[in-house]
Amino acid sequence: MSLVEELAGIVGTGHVLTAADEQQPYVTDWLGKYRGSALAVVRPGSTQEVCAVLAACDRAGAVVVPQGGHTSLSGGGTPDGSGKAVVLSLTRMNRIREIDPVGNTITVDAGCVLARVQEAARQAGRLFPLSLGAEGSCTIGGNLAANAGGVAVLRYGTMRELTLGLEVVLPDGRLWDGLKALRKDNSGYALRDLFIGSEGTLGVITGAVLKLFPEPRAKATAFVAVPTLEAALGLLSMVRERCGDRLTAFEFMTDVCLDLVMRHIADARGPFSTMPAAAVLVELSDTDGEAALGERLEGTLVDAVGAGLAQDAVVAQDGTQARAFWRLREGISEALVRAGKAAKHDISVPVAQMAAFVREAEAAVEESAPGARPVVFGHLGDGNLHYNVLRPEAASEEAFAAAVPTLTRRVHELVVRYRGSISAEHGIGQLRVGEMPGCKTPLELELMGALKTLFDPQWRFNPGKLLPPGLAVRPPLQ
Amino acid sequence: MSLVEELAGIVGTGHVLTAADEQQPYVTDWLGKYRGSALAVVRPGSTQEVCAVLAACDRAGAVVVPQGGHTSLSGGGTPDGSGKAVVLSLTRMNRIREIDPVGNTITVDAGCVLARVQEAARQAGRLFPLSLGAEGSCTIGGNLAANAGGVAVLRYGTMRELTLGLEVVLPDGRLWDGLKALRKDNSGYALRDLFIGSEGTLGVITGAVLKLFPEPRAKATAFVAVPTLEAALGLLSMVRERCGDRLTAFEFMTDVCLDLVMRHIADARGPFSTMPAAAVLVELSDTDGEAALGERLEGTLVDAVGAGLAQDAVVAQDGTQARAFWRLREGISEALVRAGKAAKHDISVPVAQMAAFVREAEAAVEESAPGARPVVFGHLGDGNLHYNVLRPEAASEEAFAAAVPTLTRRVHELVVRYRGSISAEHGIGQLRVGEMPGCKTPLELELMGALKTLFDPQWRFNPGKLLPPGLAVRPPLQ
Repeated sequence: MSLVEELAGIVGTGHVLTAADEQQPYVTDWLGKYRGSALAVVRPGSTQEVCAVLAACDRAGAVVVPQGGHTSLSGGGTPDGSGKAVVLSLTRMNRIREIDPVGNTITVDAGCVLARVQEAARQAGRLFPLSLGAEGSCTIGGNLAANAGGVAVLRYGTMRELTLGLEVVLPDGRLWDGLKALRKDNSGYALRDLFIGSEGTLGVITGAVLKLFPEPRAKATAFVAVPTLEAALGLLSMVRERCGDRLTAFEFMTDVCLDLVMRHIADARGPFSTMPAAAVLVELSDTDGEAALGERLEGTLVDAVGAGLAQDAVVAQDGTQARAFWRLREGISEALVRAGKAAKHDISVPVAQMAAFVREAEAAVEESAPGARPVVFGHLGDGNLHYNVLRPEAASEEAFAAAVPTLTRRVHELVVRYRGSISAEHGIGQLRVGEMPGCKTPLELELMGALKTLFDPQWRFNPGKLLPPGLAVRPPLQ
Repeated sequence: MSLVEELAGIVGTGHVLTAADEQQPYVTDWLGKYRGSALAVVRPGSTQEVCAVLAACDRAGAVVVPQGGHTSLSGGGTPDGSGKAVVLSLTRMNRIREIDPVGNTITVDAGCVLARVQEAARQAGRLFPLSLGAEGSCTIGGNLAANAGGVAVLRYGTMRELTLGLEVVLPDGRLWDGLKALRKDNSGYALRDLFIGSEGTLGVITGAVLKLFPEPRAKATAFVAVPTLEAALGLLSMVRERCGDRLTAFEFMTDVCLDLVMRHIADARGPFSTMPAAAVLVELSDTDGEAALGERLEGTLVDAVGAGLAQDAVVAQDGTQARAFWRLREGISEALVRAGKAAKHDISVPVAQMAAFVREAEAAVEESAPGARPVVFGHLGDGNLHYNVLRPEAASEEAFAAAVPTLTRRVHELVVRYRGSISAEHGIGQLRVGEMPGCKTPLELELMGALKTLFDPQWRFNPGKLLPPGLAVRPPLQ
């Protein structure tokens, strides 16, 4: 019996896709950047089926590419072009297993779409705070594999901090039941944290217990004009000092970003009569007291203007206006796509050094591609910038494409010098795997390689992602 | 040259202790429960010295027992009695390396005492929230090795969630520089989290970057009489709903605890005229607005009384009264010591199931040691109970001591049945290592053993702690 037949016997013939047209959405990433092929796309319906599928793949020595909503920005879930991989799509496993409003936890299948988990929490009067652009398509399993971030990390943390327990199937098909709903458990090594952020290279996450929070009933949102990134950092300190944990989002964008949004997004409207050098979207939330929250935000911003940290600020008068502010922020990615090819970087540096980093990066960009325009925005409170660079208007697409590798190398060398990360929240995937030797120490790569070999001795799981292939030959430590 | 001479050459003769009287505080745990001996106690003064010491121990094949403030409640830092171990005391490494009030981070040597880190943060107008009984003696390295919890976990998380970066010396003496001050970094496996909570069995933590928070300038503290644990859980939900992230502590204690404190702690005074069945200490904090905070707490508690979740409540009128409330909570451990030998358990279960657990545990205790008195207190919001059991008044110390192993087994079997943890915050150490096979799955033990072998192939680091010795022979997976 062939592996495909065996897999069909486990999940049913209808859930093993071998035809090219059926496979297409599973083997091409959504940016259209990576196109692969697969022996089969397998869609198990339960954890037990995942165990059986992985045991069969283990016996056959087959490569396995775990996949959730397939929304990775770094090709993390797309197979290579060899046509040998089994793509394991978790999307049929989409049950909310349990909501516990007393313990403030939700237990879900890994294939649940993030927005559905948010909605299930809301219906129970709770908040699941992870929030990001792809929330309508990405799945919890993918969020875990990539340790997703998004716009609420400042207050609630990344996916790692939002997770209590995991259920994972190992490469040999054995089940690790770590699905515990405990806030505290100091009884051994942090297996959970090893799987979170491992990008499907150590096994397949099939379920998770996640934290819930009280649903905030009050929000206050402001759009603030700031003269510089330094001033924005000063504003961040001031808002934090005055508003504490109420601060939920602090999103920075430069005039170049706003200008792009105005030009490319039909319904975008800026709140200021003149374009500021940069702007920040500030959002506070609280259990209750919307009026008091608005006053607190307004008072803080008045003082920030007085201190020269801001030039102008508009506090949203209603939900419609707040959504319009968010549209300015969220429209940037879309506007960037329409504005043409950009070199993209998802970097983090220590918060206090962001302004110095941006200044140095600008010089490096100008040297690598004269006239190229940095489009800088991101989650300032997390030290995370989406550092994009648009083609110089005078340069051809080809000339810019030729300059991008050097430009990216220069930006990332700077990130390493600032003790930052070349992947703050998007993951390494295929996109950055070649850069790992430049940004990790040899010891870190050795440890990662040894851990990989421990869980997946044949390196069959999601090959070509996260771990540079050269590591594969490394023996365990010593 | 002997190992001791070699070590003296690295750290200086004065920092290698070989005389029994000098070694005494390093080889006897502070509860006086574990008494060991050592080849030498070595006190390095820098990370470089730690590297050299561990390289020398590696060449000599010597056992190494890393040690911080030596305040473990589970014998986690005490060597065995063989006299062969090198105890590596980090307490000379006590520099605050850097405070960054913009990035809200503090970088410290692992040997810094927790209270000193709290104080350094305070002086910079910031809060380092970890807070626990031993804070005047325990060190950051020990807090990391044990993933310390304490009274502020509800709001700020355990040590794991308070840590950004680590500096670790591996068993072979190589340095892993993971000392990054990044809020987001998705570029590889979570080495940091593997070391946190590993109880010195994978290497030696020498430095850390920790998170700081805005210092709360307003506090409100109340002592609340509740009829049952169920009611306390209802009160927890209500306070959370109404006060959100302002809720900093929610400490539960039964009448037996309060009665012990009144009898054994000289300055303890309860706020109620009649002893309630149980009580909760609730603390809120906020950036500012103490009056509003007090009113919010009072309003919530009035409604809680109305809903039958509380019978009476006193909101502290000033800092003195708040400290008196805390004295009631913090006096319990001391009162327990004075009341005689108790069987101690540091357990966690899912928050919503705490009441059911306590009921079942009470029955198991009564069966194992009729007349024994459960002394139950803990961090209710974390699902963490310090489940102590006092000797029955009618039983001799010997008879009770004989009954304790069965009693503990019964309590812990129940914990496992509730999918809880037999060590919520104290760590496994020597105290619970024999119980690991009963509370972890064979697969978990296999993975832990394989991880241990990967980092420490000869199992030389902190032997006899955390990992049951039987695992030592296990090969890596497959």
